Amino acid sequence: MAYFESINKIKYEGASSKNPLAFKYYNPEEKINGKTMEELLRFSVAYWHTFNADGSDPFGVGTAIRPWDHLKGLDLAKARVEAAFELFEKLDVPFFAFHDVDISPEGSTLKETNENLDVIVAMIKDYMKTSKVKLLWNTANMFTNPRYTHGAATSPNADVFAFSAAKVKKGLEVARELGAENYVFWGGREGYETLLNTDMKLEQDNLARFFHMAVDYAKEIGLNVPFLIEPKPKEPTKHQYDFDVATGIAFLQKYGLTDYFKFNIEANHATLAGHTFEHELRTARINGMLGSVDANQGDTLLGWDTDEFPTDLYTNTLAMYEILKNGGLGNGGLNFDAKVRRGSFELEDLFHAHIAGMDAFAVGLKVANKLIEDRVLDSFIEERYSSYTKGIGLDIVEGRTNFRELEAYALQLTEVKNQSGRTERLKALINQYLLETVSSINA
Amino acid sequence: MAYFESINKIKYEGASSKNPLAFKYYNPEEKINGKTMEELLRFSVAYWHTFNADGSDPFGVGTAIRPWDHLKGLDLAKARVEAAFELFEKLDVPFFAFHDVDISPEGSTLKETNENLDVIVAMIKDYMKTSKVKLLWNTANMFTNPRYTHGAATSPNADVFAFSAAKVKKGLEVARELGAENYVFWGGREGYETLLNTDMKLEQDNLARFFHMAVDYAKEIGLNVPFLIEPKPKEPTKHQYDFDVATGIAFLQKYGLTDYFKFNIEANHATLAGHTFEHELRTARINGMLGSVDANQGDTLLGWDTDEFPTDLYTNTLAMYEILKNGGLGNGGLNFDAKVRRGSFELEDLFHAHIAGMDAFAVGLKVANKLIEDRVLDSFIEERYSSYTKGIGLDIVEGRTNFRELEAYALQLTEVKNQSGRTERLKALINQYLLETVSSINA
Amino acid sequence: MAYFESINKIKYEGASSKNPLAFKYYNPEEKINGKTMEELLRFSVAYWHTFNADGSDPFGVGTAIRPWDHLKGLDLAKARVEAAFELFEKLDVPFFAFHDVDISPEGSTLKETNENLDVIVAMIKDYMKTSKVKLLWNTANMFTNPRYTHGAATSPNADVFAFSAAKVKKGLEVARELGAENYVFWGGREGYETLLNTDMKLEQDNLARFFHMAVDYAKEIGLNVPFLIEPKPKEPTKHQYDFDVATGIAFLQKYGLTDYFKFNIEANHATLAGHTFEHELRTARINGMLGSVDANQGDTLLGWDTDEFPTDLYTNTLAMYEILKNGGLGNGGLNFDAKVRRGSFELEDLFHAHIAGMDAFAVGLKVANKLIEDRVLDSFIEERYSSYTKGIGLDIVEGRTNFRELEAYALQLTEVKNQSGRTERLKALINQYLLETVSSINA
Amino acid sequence: MAYFESINKIKYEGASSKNPLAFKYYNPEEKINGKTMEELLRFSVAYWHTFNADGSDPFGVGTAIRPWDHLKGLDLAKARVEAAFELFEKLDVPFFAFHDVDISPEGSTLKETNENLDVIVAMIKDYMKTSKVKLLWNTANMFTNPRYTHGAATSPNADVFAFSAAKVKKGLEVARELGAENYVFWGGREGYETLLNTDMKLEQDNLARFFHMAVDYAKEIGLNVPFLIEPKPKEPTKHQYDFDVATGIAFLQKYGLTDYFKFNIEANHATLAGHTFEHELRTARINGMLGSVDANQGDTLLGWDTDEFPTDLYTNTLAMYEILKNGGLGNGGLNFDAKVRRGSFELEDLFHAHIAGMDAFAVGLKVANKLIEDRVLDSFIEERYSSYTKGIGLDIVEGRTNFRELEAYALQLTEVKNQSGRTERLKALINQYLLETVSSINA
Repeated sequence: MAYFESINKIKYEGASSKNPLAFKYYNPEEKINGKTMEELLRFSVAYWHTFNADGSDPFGVGTAIRPWDHLKGLDLAKARVEAAFELFEKLDVPFFAFHDVDISPEGSTLKETNENLDVIVAMIKDYMKTSKVKLLWNTANMFTNPRYTHGAATSPNADVFAFSAAKVKKGLEVARELGAENYVFWGGREGYETLLNTDMKLEQDNLARFFHMAVDYAKEIGLNVPFLIEPKPKEPTKHQYDFDVATGIAFLQKYGLTDYFKFNIEANHATLAGHTFEHELRTARINGMLGSVDANQGDTLLGWDTDEFPTDLYTNTLAMYEILKNGGLGNGGLNFDAKVRRGSFELEDLFHAHIAGMDAFAVGLKVANKLIEDRVLDSFIEERYSSYTKGIGLDIVEGRTNFRELEAYALQLTEVKNQSGRTERLKALINQYLLETVSSINA
Repeated sequence: MAYFESINKIKYEGASSKNPLAFKYYNPEEKINGKTMEELLRFSVAYWHTFNADGSDPFGVGTAIRPWDHLKGLDLAKARVEAAFELFEKLDVPFFAFHDVDISPEGSTLKETNENLDVIVAMIKDYMKTSKVKLLWNTANMFTNPRYTHGAATSPNADVFAFSAAKVKKGLEVARELGAENYVFWGGREGYETLLNTDMKLEQDNLARFFHMAVDYAKEIGLNVPFLIEPKPKEPTKHQYDFDVATGIAFLQKYGLTDYFKFNIEANHATLAGHTFEHELRTARINGMLGSVDANQGDTLLGWDTDEFPTDLYTNTLAMYEILKNGGLGNGGLNFDAKVRRGSFELEDLFHAHIAGMDAFAVGLKVANKLIEDRVLDSFIEERYSSYTKGIGLDIVEGRTNFRELEAYALQLTEVKNQSGRTERLKALINQYLLETVSSINA
Repeated sequence: MAYFESINKIKYEGASSKNPLAFKYYNPEEKINGKTMEELLRFSVAYWHTFNADGSDPFGVGTAIRPWDHLKGLDLAKARVEAAFELFEKLDVPFFAFHDVDISPEGSTLKETNENLDVIVAMIKDYMKTSKVKLLWNTANMFTNPRYTHGAATSPNADVFAFSAAKVKKGLEVARELGAENYVFWGGREGYETLLNTDMKLEQDNLARFFHMAVDYAKEIGLNVPFLIEPKPKEPTKHQYDFDVATGIAFLQKYGLTDYFKFNIEANHATLAGHTFEHELRTARINGMLGSVDANQGDTLLGWDTDEFPTDLYTNTLAMYEILKNGGLGNGGLNFDAKVRRGSFELEDLFHAHIAGMDAFAVGLKVANKLIEDRVLDSFIEERYSSYTKGIGLDIVEGRTNFRELEAYALQLTEVKNQSGRTERLKALINQYLLETVSSINA
Repeated sequence: MAYFESINKIKYEGASSKNPLAFKYYNPEEKINGKTMEELLRFSVAYWHTFNADGSDPFGVGTAIRPWDHLKGLDLAKARVEAAFELFEKLDVPFFAFHDVDISPEGSTLKETNENLDVIVAMIKDYMKTSKVKLLWNTANMFTNPRYTHGAATSPNADVFAFSAAKVKKGLEVARELGAENYVFWGGREGYETLLNTDMKLEQDNLARFFHMAVDYAKEIGLNVPFLIEPKPKEPTKHQYDFDVATGIAFLQKYGLTDYFKFNIEANHATLAGHTFEHELRTARINGMLGSVDANQGDTLLGWDTDEFPTDLYTNTLAMYEILKNGGLGNGGLNFDAKVRRGSFELEDLFHAHIAGMDAFAVGLKVANKLIEDRVLDSFIEERYSSYTKGIGLDIVEGRTNFRELEAYALQLTEVKNQSGRTERLKALINQYLLETVSSINA
């Protein structure tokens, strides 16, 4: 059965196409520096937003009209798998990602939940045999069920810790079974509502214990993929322990976990933490911990996670800049952790939204690549920091000097002369590259 | 004397130019729908940011290197006038704007201050005879001097009210003398620090009294130009009375001032109030009160007025969309209420910054114009609201129905069927227009 | 049947009580200036948060454990009515408030929905005969159902406008039937997601048309109570038209609706709009439009409506200060538009939360009353603005002067002398009053 | 000469005092658990806000009226020292803190700057001989001078690095000379304006190199005091590297600096980073890195550092709770990094403001101490986490289990039962303790 009957496979038709259901900039086979756009962008569909989400918000019930709305339980789960692979193929995306509860219903017991999961995992595995789509990552949802009200691995209730362990154990097994490229941890409830009732130290110690057990179990079953922490500062919790990348690094360092974990960085989580997306990517990159990306965007005038499809060409360009500078994403990908707006409730909107995001990231890729090729920022930065490649600057960098020598040097300086940072000129250049890169390529 | 010796007149060289000191998109003589870009954009240089500002911030003294740094008093003021007209010509802008204290130094008495002002106003008038540049607006600075600590027209001190009246009286005279196109009121200190010590009602009543006196005096001296309120929610004051456009409208309506006032809308003030720039423009537009624009941009991850040069092509496009839909700005213009970053302290940066802003608004103009020409949004919106052009919808709009009839109608409805708002598709269209408009024009 | 079996009627036991289920400060019968605390505070229970809410949030399903969880449809609705009146009595609150869908289930048609409503309204009316509790206000929920995705009275779909009219018509009839003291409008979906698809002017015109029809119908059926607009800047909508009190005033003035509407002001909505609660109360008060209060509090470090019970003694004091200065709330009350935290899922927490809020507002009342009695702020403010009671200041206030005279006055001023605003001293005084008022009363 | 002639020594007069210039709650000699309030609170006056600040803000020049306004250069510096010790004595504070440029003027060369500093340091040392006041900490101002535009230790200019090294070298010598209890680093310009021109990795590496040299030099000169990093997320810089405590920890761990550094935590910096003050204190505390406190408060509805005097009794209580739980502040103190409002420009306001802050922290101390004494939160938390003291919970905490065992345990669980977090009840308790502690003590 076709769930998206009226939609044909989305094709690349070029920048002048007026067909809403076509790619204008994303051409999967086009090569950039020897790699195809598909290989460089590694797009992934988020199962939950695309097949489970219904457009509900805190003030309204679901609006989405979906052909599987009439189904329930495992039947519904199976229909969604069928629809998913149809959409993957029609969008021609190479990856997908899911939480356990996205793909199969929770049972009344853990055993039943796991059995349901087995059924659907087998079905997905079967579909994957004849599809090019791979599993970018899976994870265990440890935030929706009331048992996680006060946290999962950081719950004040040891039974919840145990239950969470069982969930992640199963998740790791599913990752191995489906050949996942990564395994993700998002600690939506790992934090606190108020310090008045919270033992923060015990909770963080327990979280570290949990992660160590996960590392051990992955080794035991031969699952050798990056573990990814996904930082978010708040929402639903008042304060989440994985506030941002830097906070995550502090945690991993403290508890001896840096060898096993990288970060899955989400644009909207970055802005909620008061950072730009590129800041978080840069922080992870220069610490060797850029794992994967949840490609979406927020609205900085709103204070919650809006998970919009990433259409902002500036952000996408700067994100791709960091990713290319990182030598690509390795096992990671660009996962559309993005949902159609509540008012975009028609089936077709799922395609409009993915096309919007894929095209906008394709532009970002091209512009970022051109900026790097032309060494636009690199040249400026090299010159700007050139004082550290010689004389006293080189001594500083190579650890050959100290405060006494530096004071002696400073005392004989007659003038300290800085150079303009040229922010406005650089922004104009970014605009020029944005506007000209695509048109020059298209021309 | 030339203050910007190393800088030649900035010319339009087209999108492929690699010359930093050239326009790539702003071509003043290029016609769009029968009007030149110069006529449509009406760019204005902000005197204070360009000739007075020194790059200082709350944590640091000035950094700017300016050829007039060694001068003082009226000599400094005169040098700035000379520099200003040199810059206006080199940038080829048609307008400028100033506060009284920007152009001439305060004296030890009001009389002396006014005399200083007369000297410089005469000098400026003289320069204007041989220049095409016009005064977009002037205003009285009633926030820097300690006397305005608790407000100007809203001060608890009646002497301050009187002093402020004298300042605006003089400002109106200067406006007439120099042929200003508008007169602006920004109430930076018209608000409160804490309600604990504030009689909000008296302060607002006094502000209205002040405005009425200004209206009367303008009539008396035959100054017949729009008065513009510039809303800002806060900073420096904890709460400013002209919080945003809607708040301004409430005030003007309450006090019978709507016939005399419009709004000067600043992008960064909009975002500080929790609005997009286009929201504020739209609100003013549909109330017939869009007067002029302070063209800059903020950083929504920072909580203060950063007054950056407006390089964001999305914002500029949506701003120009509102302006074109408004039938242009009338007496208003696009005034660069924007300052070079503290780190962009070289003289040359003043040009980089204005070029960045002018080019980015030129792109915005072209894209907005094309969106309107192709009726991209208009068609969508017409269709979306078409139910109000017939049947029950038309009855509603034309005031021919009531709750009883509407209930009867609703009771027989078997289904209420909405249509997708298509947000994601529309955003993709904006991207396509942004990327293609300029390249298709350039091609 | 008793739903709150383990809970006895909550009694006032005084400040030293260690009984969690007792009032420490709220003593309903205690008189302050001749009125009882009950009369002055006019507490109201919010039906939706207390009887419908389940602790769900965007990332998790409900957690609340309620004795009516096993019921459905009208049975559930009836059980909630029973529980409601039990709780009203045990808390001894004089008011409650509801949306139509809170009290009775929507049917598959409007007719059926109205019939359900009739059943429950009759039941409530019956209960009210033997209870002191009154209906503070009711309202129509026009945001939860998918039909309101794009708005209710501002929907682009005229059918939705008609449907909304039918809902409010019924709501007004229910208000009359139950003797409501006010009727509320909260426009949660009256706004926009993006301007790209929005005709803001038509939407606002339609909203005004809707309100005029509501006014007409209320007159027709003899319902003569204040209509209250409840401002909120955003959430769920990107931008709501009733952004804040000032925006509401602009709207009501423009469309000739000021005679019929006041405001229902919510603390958390104020802070989301960038205002303090007391700012919004003051703005309404000095415009004669303070109608009622949704008593809750937000978390200014979070960007969404947290609707916490109002325990902050500072905020409650300043709120009560405005209310007392307003001569009380008239038909309005303090409605606890507040929900227990997701982690406070036990039945008992409903009582802890209301006690916390009621006690905290009782303290606020006492402190505010003492501040007014001692003329702490009044004396300071009178002195601070005293220049407007004589000489040039009085001329200004009485409209006897103009810019010419004021300039002449200003020119002869040798010095403008301000006085300190004394913010820090006033804050210390507030602390002293907060700490001493209760203990001196208790002593 | 007396600079504060009209002000007598501020005395403790108790809660019922109506004397504005008296302490109502701060009684330096009163003992709490065997220590005096003076010993527990360790108040410190911030030299810059109290003796240098003039009330200027980005939109206005200074307003403060100070008896030393007519002086310049070293004369001004000396007058400020005299005034400082007069104020220290009149307020009876045991500590003060300064930046180098606060106490003595910069010369035209580094040599001259250092010589100026020597003069004033000698003068201060002399004054300290006969005063009980000690130096809580000193620091080098590396943000005001234009040379630091692009950073100090993170400047792209190696000369600036060298100059900064010379400044801190001198600062460490001054610390030793005056017996400072700590040495502070606030990296106001250590960050970036835009990533477009920034080599973040080199800058952070250089910052670490700088800190290591500082550690080495302190060892060399026998200065054995805690080094304190003061986190701030932004302002003046777009992004500061020491964003918050967690970010600081990540940095210190990465670069092997944890043995030498703790944190100086400022309330207003915490909220700018999206945290509560108590969150930052807790994070430092459980990592053994709580060094000292900049006691002030911000306005969470404003987006910049307002540095208000800390009058909020809730915040002060929760801060003192963390400090008492930390076993006190060790070498640290409560430094009033707070300024009188621009409108509080009279000399007297300096006293009102300090009294307000000192009294409010004294209340915080008493309430926090009582909460701890009565084990109010401790008991609740112990019970809440009790599942980790036995059975599977103890196995988890003691590292005796793994995912396999935990899964087996979880599979046999029939139900996971959580308990309410009781947030509302705990908030009510805090209110009761706040209101009753002082009055019961006073009674």
